[in-house]
Amino acid sequence: MKLGPLNHVGVATPSIDEAVTFWRETMCASVIHEPFDMPEQGVRVCFVDTPNSQIELLEPLGADSPIAGFLEKNPQGGQHHLCFEVPDIEAARSRFEELGKRILGPTRIGAHGTPIFFLHPKDMGGILTEIMETPEKPADETGKFAWAQ
Amino acid sequence: MKLGPLNHVGVATPSIDEAVTFWRETMCASVIHEPFDMPEQGVRVCFVDTPNSQIELLEPLGADSPIAGFLEKNPQGGQHHLCFEVPDIEAARSRFEELGKRILGPTRIGAHGTPIFFLHPKDMGGILTEIMETPEKPADETGKFAWAQ
Repeated sequence: MKLGPLNHVGVATPSIDEAVTFWRETMCASVIHEPFDMPEQGVRVCFVDTPNSQIELLEPLGADSPIAGFLEKNPQGGQHHLCFEVPDIEAARSRFEELGKRILGPTRIGAHGTPIFFLHPKDMGGILTEIMETPEKPADETGKFAWAQ
Repeated sequence: MKLGPLNHVGVATPSIDEAVTFWRETMCASVIHEPFDMPEQGVRVCFVDTPNSQIELLEPLGADSPIAGFLEKNPQGGQHHLCFEVPDIEAARSRFEELGKRILGPTRIGAHGTPIFFLHPKDMGGILTEIMETPEKPADETGKFAWAQ
């Protein structure tokens, strides 16, 4: 394994609509993708591009959303997780398992359409860490950009 | 203003030595810069490169370090702030002031040798936000890399 790009910073928010206004008007983001629901993950998602990475806005979808607890503790929202790319998700999963890191659930398809899994923050220096297989598809299909092409 | 690159994610840690071991051995980071003290900011700093951005490890320097409180609440450490680049720090500062955002202290020289300031997380969607003027110097002098050159 080799540390890949920081694909995105996951940011929880009580309202994607309000967060999009913030990122557009206060932070002057010029590329904000269309929000979409991921019911199987219990979140509504919206990607905001920076020139080199992305902010993944996450709004809870339903009362049992995995980010509901985070928003109870942080009602305004805030930094939720970091997502790093790897070329081979299964190799990465095996490696983290061998290191004794707690993996949160099965490998599943993430917001960029490639396999992902999460690692327990207590095993990762306090950081909820998402590991994501690098997408092969071009930018307009995955929301990725020039630096990763 | 225009949203610039995500220069780095600031990550607080009780021990840069242990965090460097984690980023080298668990996360397979290949480029980890030499740690250095910033006594005027009350932190010891170490940059870890990803192919597109950086992780800024922060260890408290002294009991009145600005990250001491964060580590009391999060003894293991974790995500502390996000830093975005802008071309003109004074223009950015004026803009955030006009928007009524609380700026934490004066504009000062940050870890990359360019002017920076911080914005209050309660005005920024729960994210402690650092705004940093893009360095003009080449990579080997500032710790920046190919994507920003």
